[in-house]
Amino acid sequence: MRQIAHQITVKTHERHLYDITGEVTAWVHAGGFRTGLLTLYIQHTSASLMINENYDPDVLKDMERFFDRLVTDGDPLFVHTAEGPDDMPAHIRTALTQVNLSIPLIDGKLALGTWQGIFLFEHRHLPMARRVMLHLLGE
Amino acid sequence: MRQIAHQITVKTHERHLYDITGEVTAWVHAGGFRTGLLTLYIQHTSASLMINENYDPDVLKDMERFFDRLVTDGDPLFVHTAEGPDDMPAHIRTALTQVNLSIPLIDGKLALGTWQGIFLFEHRHLPMARRVMLHLLGE
Amino acid sequence: MRQIAHQITVKTHERHLYDITGEVTAWVHAGGFRTGLLTLYIQHTSASLMINENYDPDVLKDMERFFDRLVTDGDPLFVHTAEGPDDMPAHIRTALTQVNLSIPLIDGKLALGTWQGIFLFEHRHLPMARRVMLHLLGE
Repeated sequence: MRQIAHQITVKTHERHLYDITGEVTAWVHAGGFRTGLLTLYIQHTSASLMINENYDPDVLKDMERFFDRLVTDGDPLFVHTAEGPDDMPAHIRTALTQVNLSIPLIDGKLALGTWQGIFLFEHRHLPMARRVMLHLLGE
Repeated sequence: MRQIAHQITVKTHERHLYDITGEVTAWVHAGGFRTGLLTLYIQHTSASLMINENYDPDVLKDMERFFDRLVTDGDPLFVHTAEGPDDMPAHIRTALTQVNLSIPLIDGKLALGTWQGIFLFEHRHLPMARRVMLHLLGE
Repeated sequence: MRQIAHQITVKTHERHLYDITGEVTAWVHAGGFRTGLLTLYIQHTSASLMINENYDPDVLKDMERFFDRLVTDGDPLFVHTAEGPDDMPAHIRTALTQVNLSIPLIDGKLALGTWQGIFLFEHRHLPMARRVMLHLLGE
């Protein structure tokens, strides 16, 4: 049993769901594990992680529009507006989605379903550099 | 330290919370581990996982009705309607709940609280066969 | 590779986000691990876990007020009201946030971002004693 870790940086240019499946699986496969557990951990409070459909781009657009409506930028409920009208909504959207993901590795492959992709959900409108820690434990 | 993995299939017949605690704990106990970490991973984007109260059936009904209201079938906001009015809501309900769960195993038992059950949350109305990967690491 | 586990009890006095970062990191550091995976697991269905901003107290207040509005106490939709108007909302707020968290340990430190804190989100109004299981696996 052994473990490896690696930090990736995702450059975002606007509020959007960014597919990071390719970069994550490339790193996992390079590790040469057969069976194990992958953990993804995002080190931010205004961007998050999500596993969802990666086939029809309309799913991502609908997802983004649903969250825009559920957590409204500039909602007068919010006191914390230091970084603008998308500041507090970004924290809440992070709370409603994921900071960490756990994906088993079976027979040398991540156990992702046929239509599942791994996404970084950027909740801020301005460009950001987002750090995601990857940790793989197994053999 | 060793690890085992197993895929279970849950046959769903309608949108509903299905209790899978018995099947999961039976597999875990058969593994003969004393201490470890169980990961559950659902390989779909329109069904999800949830740990919640397993005592009063009204909790499940209220949970289902809350999600039905929060993410409305046929909402005109959605462009992605290829598989019907429950298609995009299913992806969003998955995003708002869990694709993976992590439960420690302590003294040979999962660390579930007294009233906690493990549920598969089917978000589609039609019958489905849902695959959940179980991975257990420990000794 | 080795693993350790420990149960902490968090005494809550009202619905609120309680910062447990200090207690968790103290236990992790005492374990003497360099690299590994920390799992937090809350053994309740009416309180949950959240990683979010720990700098500006207004973030916590806004977060609490958003959830109060999204899942309304005493909503006539709910049948399960055995323990009062905050009973079913507590289960739903738990479903929308986290029962478990996974945080990698890198170079002897949890991979928390600069502004990230670990919180227990108490969803009931009455005082409670909440049990959180900590499990650390690594070397």
